[in-house]
This record gives sequence, C-alpha cells and structure tokens, in this order.
Amino acid sequence: MNDTFLKVCRGEKADYTPIWIMRQAGRYLPQYQEVRSKVDFLTLCKTPELAAKVTIQPVEILGVDAAILFSDILIPLEAIGMGLRFEEEKGPIFDKPIRDIKAVKRLIDINPKEHVPFVLETVKILKKELKVPLIGFSGAPFTLATYMIEGGSSKTYLNTKKMMYTDQQLFKSLMDKLTTNTISYLKGQITSGADAVQLFDSWAGILSPDDYRNFAFPYVLKIISELKTLKVPIIYFVNNCGGLLEIARECGSDVIGIDWRVDLSNAIDRIGKDKVIQGNLEPIILFSDKNQIKKAATDIIQKGKMANGHIFNLGHGILPTTPVDNLKILIDVVHEMG
Amino acid sequence: MNDTFLKVCRGEKADYTPIWIMRQAGRYLPQYQEVRSKVDFLTLCKTPELAAKVTIQPVEILGVDAAILFSDILIPLEAIGMGLRFEEEKGPIFDKPIRDIKAVKRLIDINPKEHVPFVLETVKILKKELKVPLIGFSGAPFTLATYMIEGGSSKTYLNTKKMMYTDQQLFKSLMDKLTTNTISYLKGQITSGADAVQLFDSWAGILSPDDYRNFAFPYVLKIISELKTLKVPIIYFVNNCGGLLEIARECGSDVIGIDWRVDLSNAIDRIGKDKVIQGNLEPIILFSDKNQIKKAATDIIQKGKMANGHIFNLGHGILPTTPVDNLKILIDVVHEMG
Repeated sequence: MNDTFLKVCRGEKADYTPIWIMRQAGRYLPQYQEVRSKVDFLTLCKTPELAAKVTIQPVEILGVDAAILFSDILIPLEAIGMGLRFEEEKGPIFDKPIRDIKAVKRLIDINPKEHVPFVLETVKILKKELKVPLIGFSGAPFTLATYMIEGGSSKTYLNTKKMMYTDQQLFKSLMDKLTTNTISYLKGQITSGADAVQLFDSWAGILSPDDYRNFAFPYVLKIISELKTLKVPIIYFVNNCGGLLEIARECGSDVIGIDWRVDLSNAIDRIGKDKVIQGNLEPIILFSDKNQIKKAATDIIQKGKMANGHIFNLGHGILPTTPVDNLKILIDVVHEMG
Repeated sequence: MNDTFLKVCRGEKADYTPIWIMRQAGRYLPQYQEVRSKVDFLTLCKTPELAAKVTIQPVEILGVDAAILFSDILIPLEAIGMGLRFEEEKGPIFDKPIRDIKAVKRLIDINPKEHVPFVLETVKILKKELKVPLIGFSGAPFTLATYMIEGGSSKTYLNTKKMMYTDQQLFKSLMDKLTTNTISYLKGQITSGADAVQLFDSWAGILSPDDYRNFAFPYVLKIISELKTLKVPIIYFVNNCGGLLEIARECGSDVIGIDWRVDLSNAIDRIGKDKVIQGNLEPIILFSDKNQIKKAATDIIQKGKMANGHIFNLGHGILPTTPVDNLKILIDVVHEMG
C-alpha cells in the first residue's frame, strides 16, 4: 500500500507531498455522474457497492494518495431519527428541526452496526480494493447541530446562536448527544478498517472565537481525545478558520486542515511549526490554466515546508463544474514539486 | 455637535467609547418599518426627506454617537447603468451581469450631482438636522464587482473568480471603473457634508490572501489615498477579515473595522497598536439577555483599550428581528463602561 499520506499524518518523513481533494468523489467526474444518473444521492450513499465504486474512482482516474469514504455528514443524523431529504437548490432539509429537549431526547444513540451497516460495509469493501489509505469522516458536533437546529443551511444561523445563548442546557444536551454519537460513528468506521479519520467543522467559522471556545471546541476536544486510543491519524478541518487558529491548534489532532482564506505561512506561524497541516488551495484556481495552477500550488508547497508535515488539499470541497484535466495538472504538479 | 466619534477616528482622546451600529437605520426599528410600509426600498433610498428621516431615527431613539446615511451600496451601480431590483428572498438582482468588455464600457462615469442628486440632497438635509457626525459610505470595488459579475449574491463567487483568473484585463477594466466611480461618489458625499466615510468590503473575505492582495486591495489603497486629501476620517471595514489583517492594516485608513469572527485582541496584535479599530460584537448576542450583552460588550471594550482608539460597533449589520430594547441595553453599557 502507498502509505505516504499516513506517514505525513504521523509527522514522519515521506518521499513527496501527498495530495487528496475534499469532495474528490463527486459530480465533476463524468464517471461519478454516470453512477449517480441511475440512483439518487442518498441511495448512492447507502449502497455499499456503489459508494465503494465512486470512492475508488478518483484514486484510479487521478492518482490521489488517499481515498475518502463516499458519504455525507448528515447520514448519521438521518440514522438517529432526523428525517433527511435533499432539494436541488436548497440542499439538505430536516423538516423537523430541533428546538426543544423532547426533540433531543427522541434521538437515538447510534450503533453503527445496527443503524448505518452500509457505511461499515462500504469501508470493508474499500479496504479490500484500495491501494491507498482510506479516510473515514464525520461532521463535528457544532456543524451537525447547525443543520439540525436550522433545519438545513442558513445565512445567519440565528436559531442556532439563539439556542446557544438563551437555552444553554438544551444546546448542551444536543451537543453531548452528537459528541457521543460522533465518537461511536467514527469508532465504527475505524474498527471496520478506516486508516484515518477527518472531522469536518464546516460551520465553526461562523462563531466568534469566544463562542467557538465555549460552544464548539470542547466537544471536538472530547472526540479527539477518545479516538486517540485507536491509534489512527485524526484530521480536524475547521472551515473559515482565520480567526480561530489560536484555539483550534490545541485540539490534539494529528493534522489540522486549513481553508483557502488563510495564508498557509501565517497559519503555520499561528498553529506552531510542530504540527502537520493540510490544505489549502483556492478551489476556483482549478478553473484557470496550467501556469496559474502550477504557480499557486508551488507557492503552497513552499509554505508547507515550514510545518512538521504537509498534506496537499484544496481549501474547501472541489466544485461540481471543475475541469477534470486541471485537477490532473494539479495532482501532477504536487507530485513533481512536493 | 457631539464629536466624540470623530475624535476617536482621528486617534485623539475622548471621554468615552463612541458607538454606532451597522444597519442601525433598518427593519428592527418599528419607526423605520412605519416609513418603509409606505414606500419600497429603492424609493426610500431615493427620497431625501424620507432617507434623512430614517437616518436620524436611531440617533434620536437610541442615542448612537454617529449617523450613517441611509442608502445601499448598489445605488451608485444602478446610477451608472446596472438595472437593479430586489427580490424578497434572493436580495439584489442585476438581470444583466457584467461578463464582457462591452458591458464595462457601457457603464458611465458617475457625476454625483447629475446621477445621484438625491444622495447629496439627503446629506445636506442631515447636516442641518443632526447633532452627531454623519458617516457617508460606499461599497469597495471588489465587493461591488461581485454583485455586478454574479448578477446578485452568490455562494461560491465562481463567475467573479473565473473572470479574475482567466480575463485579468476585463476584470481590471471593471475594477478601475469602480475605483474611479467610488472616489467620485465619496467625494460627492464629503463635499455635501459627510463628516466621515466608510468603505464596505463585505465580500473581500471570500478571497485567499494572495488574491486579495492582487485583485482587491490595490483599488482600496487608491481610493483611500485619493480621499485623504479631503481630510475626513476614512473607515475601511473588511468583512471576514481573519485571514486578511496583515494586508488590510496597510490600507492607510484612519480606522479599520473588524468583523465578529476575530478576537479583538488578536486583531489589534496583528494590525498594530497604533491603529484605531472599530467593532466587533457578534450581532446575535443582541438576542440574549442583559447579563450576556453586558459581559460580551465589557470584554470588547477592555480589549479595545489596547488600540490607539476604539469605536464600538457590531461585527456585522444588525439583524432585522433584533429586539430594540437589547440594543438600548448595549448602547447604555458601552456609554457607561467605555
């Protein structure tokens, strides 16, 4: 197995800079669209053979150094009792958002074997077929809570923050529940064979640093400290982290993922040079040309050398209309230069 | 006239910490809704007596230390040839987004007296009636360009960034045009009586620091250096500035406005203690209670003391459903504590 990615996660020396791409199994790939044209998104997530197939696609087509389980951060929420559907323009919808303690108490404790067997099955298939490490993942509790409280995406996150400020007990009940479930869910993935896990805190960046410290970060700390005993690398990606790095650096993960809105040198200065970092190319650079992609990637590789290790990635998920050839250029550049 | 706000802008000592609120003339005030119920939003912006009336409301009702002209950053774009309309759920819409050089060339050079006489008239009425300083404003070029290129708001800003990367000449033509126009527009407001101006870079925070330095910041620099000769304080508010402070601090403005996602101490460290800062309370704290508002405001006032001057504000515009009484509590707390 190509273990470059895992070596770098652990802070060990590697021959080159490994690269994988957030949302690398996705709509920009014609081969993914082919599979997706026959089933809806949730069915794809829940059908192990198909989920495994699209997980492998970017490894075979593009030569990335790690695969990431094809799934969605909201899948375990559906499994614990949140009715989930997707609308074309609006994205995910929970028709019954969480607004009181009864709704929290109705949520079950996840038992991955029982409630998301298809996820574990997908991991097992992948472990047999992949020649690169498999990354499992989960949303971080605050990010999951925003979807549950808002009922979907939001511009202002007014309901989430109102609950946070005005009913701290209710908010904490929900976050505690999500923390326990996230630990179980990731342990299930790891036990089934995931070689590393990434915790996606996609919406923590809407919080002030003080609120992040009080209302989101303690739950991340707990999850990471619980998972440490399983000895697989843990990546913590906190999106829009420009104001949060001084707190996030204390999370205890093996790797910290950085979004594109922060200069990587600045991030390394603020996180500490003893940490391994992941990131952080502006995803839309992939709509430009070879020269610009090469220049931007080289710059990030150079900056990444200041850290204890660097895994190349975009600073956010790849966009559905990204030209595949430009992504290939990026991956080749990183493999040559890094 | 109460000139506390202007003194602090200039880095002079003042008796207390002045406060104003972004979007302080707005829907959360019943008195505003009363006026707005009779006219649509654009008519309100373009009717000097009414625009002046709602501009004064928060000064009289709440006791803020500065007034800000009631208008919209897109008003001067409509004046130079962009057909503007507002849709209830979607916000502003330009039906003919800018995608080629012909569209840029069709835009006229703004002459405020001729093209936005109602803005100058509103300023003149306000100067007679206000007992606090009047802040004029404009969107910064990059922020304005995103609306023009996307045709409205956007999640990814794909069109804007694609143009930036793949047709730099076209992008620069648009930005040059917006820079010239912004200078003329703000000069018009200042000449008519505005005591200070704020440049809103609401969307610069979607850029990587390198892109911000190359594609947005040079135009801000030019505007600020041109306006300096007019000797009124200039505030530069760059939203989502957590990754951009090391660049933004060089803008040459009198005051830098900070959004809520950055800790104010951290911001002051990174900007430099010789600068005057404005901000940065999480707007949704105003949905909590007196104790939490007091605690959060006191914390920000304490942190603000490290700078060369501090103007209290929210870290973003006040939300339409904010309880007025809580805003009153905030203003009283700031006046007592600061």
